[in-house]
Amino acid sequence: MRFEVTILGSSSATPIFNRNPSSQLLNVNDRYFLIDCGEGTQLQLLKYGFKAQRIEHIFISHLHGDHYLGLVGLLSSLHLNGRTKPMHIFGPADLKEIIEIQFKYSQTDLRYPIYFFAVDPQNPQKIFENYDVYVETIILNHRIPCTGYKFSQKKRQRKINRELVEKLGIPVEYIPLLKRGNDYTDKAGVIHRALDLTFEAEEPRSYAYCSDTICSWGYLEQITGVNTLYHEATFLHDMLPRAEETYHTTALQAGEVALKANASQLLIGHFSARYRDLIPLLDESRSVFTNTQLAIEGNTFQL
Amino acid sequence: MRFEVTILGSSSATPIFNRNPSSQLLNVNDRYFLIDCGEGTQLQLLKYGFKAQRIEHIFISHLHGDHYLGLVGLLSSLHLNGRTKPMHIFGPADLKEIIEIQFKYSQTDLRYPIYFFAVDPQNPQKIFENYDVYVETIILNHRIPCTGYKFSQKKRQRKINRELVEKLGIPVEYIPLLKRGNDYTDKAGVIHRALDLTFEAEEPRSYAYCSDTICSWGYLEQITGVNTLYHEATFLHDMLPRAEETYHTTALQAGEVALKANASQLLIGHFSARYRDLIPLLDESRSVFTNTQLAIEGNTFQL
Repeated sequence: MRFEVTILGSSSATPIFNRNPSSQLLNVNDRYFLIDCGEGTQLQLLKYGFKAQRIEHIFISHLHGDHYLGLVGLLSSLHLNGRTKPMHIFGPADLKEIIEIQFKYSQTDLRYPIYFFAVDPQNPQKIFENYDVYVETIILNHRIPCTGYKFSQKKRQRKINRELVEKLGIPVEYIPLLKRGNDYTDKAGVIHRALDLTFEAEEPRSYAYCSDTICSWGYLEQITGVNTLYHEATFLHDMLPRAEETYHTTALQAGEVALKANASQLLIGHFSARYRDLIPLLDESRSVFTNTQLAIEGNTFQL
Repeated sequence: MRFEVTILGSSSATPIFNRNPSSQLLNVNDRYFLIDCGEGTQLQLLKYGFKAQRIEHIFISHLHGDHYLGLVGLLSSLHLNGRTKPMHIFGPADLKEIIEIQFKYSQTDLRYPIYFFAVDPQNPQKIFENYDVYVETIILNHRIPCTGYKFSQKKRQRKINRELVEKLGIPVEYIPLLKRGNDYTDKAGVIHRALDLTFEAEEPRSYAYCSDTICSWGYLEQITGVNTLYHEATFLHDMLPRAEETYHTTALQAGEVALKANASQLLIGHFSARYRDLIPLLDESRSVFTNTQLAIEGNTFQL
């Protein structure tokens, strides 16, 4: 099952050096989830060949402009391009007013419904679930209320050993039962064990998105054991006082969080405009957590 | 005196084919005026090497997102990059609320003042004037209130014939008087005529920006005699019913407007996403008005 993320923006507050503000496109079994939507996100989707109409769920972490200013433009283009299917938006309660006021003044009567879900900025919640994945908020610690999002694949049913099942002539209708663990008794009365007719499903994986936060251990419990952690790394560690003052994290600290969370992979992003070259940030994070990658525009990571 | 415009966005409602939503940077004697500010304008300024901090006046035509959605991001980046000098914004009254609500929720306390001027959507006004130029609104006819802007250079004083003035030993302090037409009497009592010591100044030029409008003759009087006319040309003329329904103009009509307005140069833009190739729009407009140019990203036009 596809479970991958493509980075659309890696810049912190001000875009520079061809780096765009925050946005990521998560693909879960060919369903698109958009995480944050900085200015220019619709252009980035075009650039990398993603059909924006396929997005059905958008998750906004907080109301600093570099994380949501592309939202109204994207919603507007979807409308103009004929969308009728609903859009689900998860984010801070005040985002609803920001969206509505702009469509009011542009006299836009959207052709599709927006279902808005206001996340609780204080308490983690499970906010979404479908057949493949569920989503929980992560309570981050930033200058304004800010929630990360954790996407967890569900435990899948065992996979059918098609070759064996066909050889034994087991009816197609019985396959769902096999997956659920029911043994099969054939016409001769022979019992075929479900465990022998199926393979172990892949272990469910998870992805945590920690957009903007001072490095604190408050959210560590929520992300412990995650497979891939995206964590902001706005500054190098020599800027720690500045990072703390602005409620951001250093690349070194991002590595420490990944280590303590026992993650397998760390993606770092949200880079300050002061860094043209990002390799020092990568090196610093890798000095603590080896499997760190730069979450930069156009790169896709298997989760 | 420099009087030129650089196109930052040429697309209509939805960005596509590397075309961005509407924005133009007008340079008047090395002062920057931003006209409309679609999503991604700050990125376009970066791309073409313009220092956004030099912008002191922004003119927004109307509240369809493709004309203003880049504004809050731009204002925010100017703040984060340390701006202290004021910004003057001219636009529809409701734009103020849209800006303020977003800075309220992001808890941004701007380091610089914004002086907001609400334009009257019904009556043309002179809204700005400095030493070089004055700006008037143009009342357009769109689905929502929409004003264009006309920038007119002022009549300049005559230019000094430096060679002659130096040869005659005329004191520097007297030069402003010569420019204003005062003759100069030297110590021997000889009168030197100001007209002989100066050259005619260049004729003042003008630029009219007509962003989104159905083709109507209501605004013709206001733009008659303009040197360069920017006029939207969203559709080809075979789409006239669609143009009228959506309160837009065809390329043929844009040419007719330029012809009737007796303009010297026509720039067309705001192209529909249905046209990948813009040459048919250019040809259609040129069939009526020869000196038509495509107002596309990165191109600078002398006005």
